[in-house]
Amino acid sequence: MQDAGHDSTPTPYAYPLLIKHLLHTTFIQAPDQEIVYRGQLRMTYTTMRERIARLANGLHDLGVRHGTTVAVMDWDSHRYLESYFAVPMMGAVLQTVNVRLSHAEIAYTINHSGAEVLFVHTDFLPVVEAIKDQLETVRVFVWIDEPGSDACEHTIPFATEYEAMLAASATHYDFPDFDENTRATTFYTTGTTGLPKGVYFSHRQLVLHTITLMAALASPVAGQRFHRGDVYMPLTPMFHVHAWGMPYIATVLGVKQVYPGRYVPERLVQLVRDEGVTFSHCVSTILHMLLSCDEAKHVDLGKWKVVIGGGALPHGLARAALDRGIDVFVGYGMSETCPVLSLAQLPLHTEPLDLDEEVRLRCKTGFPVPLVDLRIVNEHMEDVPRDGKAYGEIVVRTPWLTQGYLNNPEASAQLWAGGYLHTQDIANIDPTGNVQITDRIKDVIKSGGEWISSLEIESLISLHPGVAEVAVIGIKDEKWGERPVALVVLRQDAQVSEDDVKQHVLGFSKTGQISKYAVPQIVRFVDALQKTSVGKTNKKWLREQFA
Amino acid sequence: MQDAGHDSTPTPYAYPLLIKHLLHTTFIQAPDQEIVYRGQLRMTYTTMRERIARLANGLHDLGVRHGTTVAVMDWDSHRYLESYFAVPMMGAVLQTVNVRLSHAEIAYTINHSGAEVLFVHTDFLPVVEAIKDQLETVRVFVWIDEPGSDACEHTIPFATEYEAMLAASATHYDFPDFDENTRATTFYTTGTTGLPKGVYFSHRQLVLHTITLMAALASPVAGQRFHRGDVYMPLTPMFHVHAWGMPYIATVLGVKQVYPGRYVPERLVQLVRDEGVTFSHCVSTILHMLLSCDEAKHVDLGKWKVVIGGGALPHGLARAALDRGIDVFVGYGMSETCPVLSLAQLPLHTEPLDLDEEVRLRCKTGFPVPLVDLRIVNEHMEDVPRDGKAYGEIVVRTPWLTQGYLNNPEASAQLWAGGYLHTQDIANIDPTGNVQITDRIKDVIKSGGEWISSLEIESLISLHPGVAEVAVIGIKDEKWGERPVALVVLRQDAQVSEDDVKQHVLGFSKTGQISKYAVPQIVRFVDALQKTSVGKTNKKWLREQFA
Repeated sequence: MQDAGHDSTPTPYAYPLLIKHLLHTTFIQAPDQEIVYRGQLRMTYTTMRERIARLANGLHDLGVRHGTTVAVMDWDSHRYLESYFAVPMMGAVLQTVNVRLSHAEIAYTINHSGAEVLFVHTDFLPVVEAIKDQLETVRVFVWIDEPGSDACEHTIPFATEYEAMLAASATHYDFPDFDENTRATTFYTTGTTGLPKGVYFSHRQLVLHTITLMAALASPVAGQRFHRGDVYMPLTPMFHVHAWGMPYIATVLGVKQVYPGRYVPERLVQLVRDEGVTFSHCVSTILHMLLSCDEAKHVDLGKWKVVIGGGALPHGLARAALDRGIDVFVGYGMSETCPVLSLAQLPLHTEPLDLDEEVRLRCKTGFPVPLVDLRIVNEHMEDVPRDGKAYGEIVVRTPWLTQGYLNNPEASAQLWAGGYLHTQDIANIDPTGNVQITDRIKDVIKSGGEWISSLEIESLISLHPGVAEVAVIGIKDEKWGERPVALVVLRQDAQVSEDDVKQHVLGFSKTGQISKYAVPQIVRFVDALQKTSVGKTNKKWLREQFA
Repeated sequence: MQDAGHDSTPTPYAYPLLIKHLLHTTFIQAPDQEIVYRGQLRMTYTTMRERIARLANGLHDLGVRHGTTVAVMDWDSHRYLESYFAVPMMGAVLQTVNVRLSHAEIAYTINHSGAEVLFVHTDFLPVVEAIKDQLETVRVFVWIDEPGSDACEHTIPFATEYEAMLAASATHYDFPDFDENTRATTFYTTGTTGLPKGVYFSHRQLVLHTITLMAALASPVAGQRFHRGDVYMPLTPMFHVHAWGMPYIATVLGVKQVYPGRYVPERLVQLVRDEGVTFSHCVSTILHMLLSCDEAKHVDLGKWKVVIGGGALPHGLARAALDRGIDVFVGYGMSETCPVLSLAQLPLHTEPLDLDEEVRLRCKTGFPVPLVDLRIVNEHMEDVPRDGKAYGEIVVRTPWLTQGYLNNPEASAQLWAGGYLHTQDIANIDPTGNVQITDRIKDVIKSGGEWISSLEIESLISLHPGVAEVAVIGIKDEKWGERPVALVVLRQDAQVSEDDVKQHVLGFSKTGQISKYAVPQIVRFVDALQKTSVGKTNKKWLREQFA
């Protein structure tokens, strides 16, 4: 009678984890909810549903089939959101092109992914005009004609224009069933060395990331959640790791969504105010930029929740955000991980926290979300003690990690050495399971046999009232191996000396928070810090400049 | 260059959705959290982790291997929770035996599942003594010796006792990876007709149900959520649909869990009070029983959230619960669906609701949870209009439905006719997507060409202050086909006449809420209503009695 065990035969009732299944509840339960573009264009979810079908029909007419790659060059928009659904739901692959890369790199990524269709926003006509003869696989160009922006002279042979294509297409498309492991998206990491590397995610991975992150973000700590009463606006570009997958969550929740187009600080702040935005995510430099702009001084930001990722959240910035009433906290992940792996969390059922302690907890790398097997290991892949001190590399397994780098078996093997994905982040974990990244492997400063956390020193320096931004890098030193150097951007009109900064850090070494070795040997004041294409401080470039 | 499309080749980095992966975060983040049994035995999650490993080692020593079925006869306990994890995590199948079935049915289900190991709580020694010669596949009996309860004389050849087995086993077990479609659990539905039918769920299905329901329950409507600050106690038996899968969610959340053993109303109320229980789920008859017991009159229930499922929540009972401060709302599902498909929800951003409206919304079948493709269809599988009036059968697809009935291809084909699982529930859906079940297909009353909802009439009668419980059934009628008959249990000392009840219902027909045909032709007062083994009103039995 017994026939237990494997029931893996596909049945007619199999239910693959496809992106289209994320939409079952949305359009029925929130048909009139709004999607807003730049505060100017508004449409309902019902309209979005029609436009997704129109886009699929239009692409089908252009020859897009199962497995075709469709590349998009656009700012954050309702159109991008439409492509997040329509392209993979057809069985095609969406390539989100990093428009901040160099021309040569953009051409490289489009060729490397084998994209056959390329969407080009008016602002990127000059780029595509410059690289079009290098594009080896693109056979169809689609123009995104932004109202109010002027097209330059060009010779790109556009087949159609986005809105015209949608207008000419039917409002129903029968999105098929297929294997949940079908590739849905691809995009390129923006490392500071070598060529961009492609990562890729399947339908199954995106669905699991969406649902699990929904559950994790619901944690009921003062605002640390994303729920159906929120108004959502991304502030990490949609070309980068699907804007952390949050547009998928926003759509499942059926919340109002606001897409800002190109990021202009004043306009972003106005959108938060005018559209009542309550949930966003960005890198810390973007938050810094927004809080520093004049517009922000007169806007109530007290209902805004902001997840900070893509790098550390300096304590000074967290404190400035809390001062403005912003519920700010860290989320951790990377391009290779879809991206979210952990979220900072405050404890439940405690007395009100001391502000320093609250800042510290909001800035921590945090607690892994469900289904994430996160380990901190030494070079022998052995777990380090959970004492909040011992450090090792974060390695992970979860159901939503890139299987490797696209067509790059060597780098893929390295990424997955020992059966875990290697993040190259150095961290410790405390007895409660709370994780703290102290550095990227390549940024750690090795001084006199000790490892100095550049992130920790940056965070301490950021607490100085005169400091706007800071980067700490290691410079070769004959005696000590490396010594820390701080590159500091001062606030306007701040009068701060090199010695002031050193004394400020020395203060923390006296209380035992850091070692005396960690006090920067040199403090250099600079006008700005070089950033990467996704807005992170480019430490490689800084090290080269200040070597 | 393009190699998009299917990436379905298993890689060393494949991450199957296995129950063991639900535990990655739990034991690290909540090592000292409590699991409480009957208010008497307390253990930490760290101890539970050890006990899960001990149980697996003990079972392995008893010959349990991948695919072996292990059957459990126990009340709701920490032991049951341990078996929820240890048995499937080994690759074995957990059969949760419905101990409320008849002896013959229990023997039938154990033979039908092919269980090789049977756990027997002291209270069930008489049952197993009676059926042991009929058991065809069980080769190992394990005794669960409940402290304080007396074992009867018996001749069951027990191999070991549960706690003795755990004490003798090692605290580490290397739970293997295997196909996520491996069967994890099986149990038997308790229909009122025919033999019990086995349903079964895989690791993948239980993981997806757990994570998606976590996300859905987090919806921020006054307490309608289950979060890491809650204290959990099940009030639907653990043998029935894994107690709605909630123990899995509770464990992922790392909350305090309270297991009550055998259900004794006074003791359950004491546990809510003494252990600070804030989240439970039960059928409405259990809630009715708890609210009616003397003990409940003196206990503050104002922090208790209770999901009601397994049948309608009568408006009168919902109102009584709200009066006590209980945050009560409906969840919908069935054995075949793992079980949860939808949850009742209150609207966001509205003025405070009128009490009648709030009761109505809390009692609705509610909104499908994410990934649930729920349709209401006519006999041609066409969707009925979303107007809140047109009725049809609820059919569903989700990633967590039983593939069929165990070794019963005929019933399985019927269940899955047309590629959707047929619930046999009649419902309507309103323009906002809010679903309302009006009847089971077999309970609907067809009178003079109209369909009368027995559930609706029951709910209206339940609002009468003298009424404790009510069932409405259809009785054959020469002229009308069927006519409704109400069977009413009065509150103690209530003075209510047949005509009082009819006039009460007639009032609702005057306001147009129901048709005049729906006023019961006969109202019969009874001492109690016959219940099924899971506590639902047994309408089949009632129809036979009152035919």
